[in-house]
Amino acid sequence: MHASEMAEDFPVIGVEDDAWDAVTQLAERRLPGLVVIDTDGRPLSILPSSQVVRILVPTYVQDDPSLAGVLSESMADRVADKLRGKKVRALIPDDGDVPELAVVNDDDTIVEVAAVMARLSCPLAAVLRRGELLGVITASRLLQLALTSR
Amino acid sequence: MHASEMAEDFPVIGVEDDAWDAVTQLAERRLPGLVVIDTDGRPLSILPSSQVVRILVPTYVQDDPSLAGVLSESMADRVADKLRGKKVRALIPDDGDVPELAVVNDDDTIVEVAAVMARLSCPLAAVLRRGELLGVITASRLLQLALTSR
Repeated sequence: MHASEMAEDFPVIGVEDDAWDAVTQLAERRLPGLVVIDTDGRPLSILPSSQVVRILVPTYVQDDPSLAGVLSESMADRVADKLRGKKVRALIPDDGDVPELAVVNDDDTIVEVAAVMARLSCPLAAVLRRGELLGVITASRLLQLALTSR
Repeated sequence: MHASEMAEDFPVIGVEDDAWDAVTQLAERRLPGLVVIDTDGRPLSILPSSQVVRILVPTYVQDDPSLAGVLSESMADRVADKLRGKKVRALIPDDGDVPELAVVNDDDTIVEVAAVMARLSCPLAAVLRRGELLGVITASRLLQLALTSR
């Protein structure tokens, strides 16, 4: 079985799209993350929910977590303010906290996909055919395929 | 709102349980991960699918990824062999590739939970009340709650 047959649809967002749209998609659809694509449709990065929650934390709490307990929680407006006019690009941390997106070719095997995913500790792999995004393979999908393949 | 109200059920597995059971749960239920608890029910760690896929990769391929393409793919039997007699403990890598499990108290606020999650880059937080696991808050659940809280 090749990666092209393992690939599934996965929510993507453009790097120049509105940051607020990305956050509401993650929230409303309860997604662990989005694949971020560039303006040519090539996968660039992952935007994991675990990183996006940073926007809920005011800077002075990041500096001194003991202050978190004293905050009021009228959060939605504060988040909207914070994201106004921002692009998805601004949500991607540049400090190495985002796992490198695993990228595999459409003719890669289960073992090849697993090897890339494990090396990068990345929960999903983007499947490309000649630079075009065919879909995504999540780690649990890969396990499922492996356990049912003979 | 406090963490106890945000918590949801999440699949857990005991550190002394059978490794094969953990892998089949991840595969069949398409889970991104399991919370690993010790024999007293206290949360110990996360077992992410992205780490478990390592078991699909033979050691000689980990050493030389170019060999991955030449493997046959009768995988399920090979995985079963590899896991026979092993405990969940053996699946948890000790090389720092598993994110530290975020642990929060039942009376923590959204901002406190977000601060812990963001600091550890952990996609979920275990909610404890006097050492007992009440449930788990995923990052996307936290975003959902934040955007709907006033």
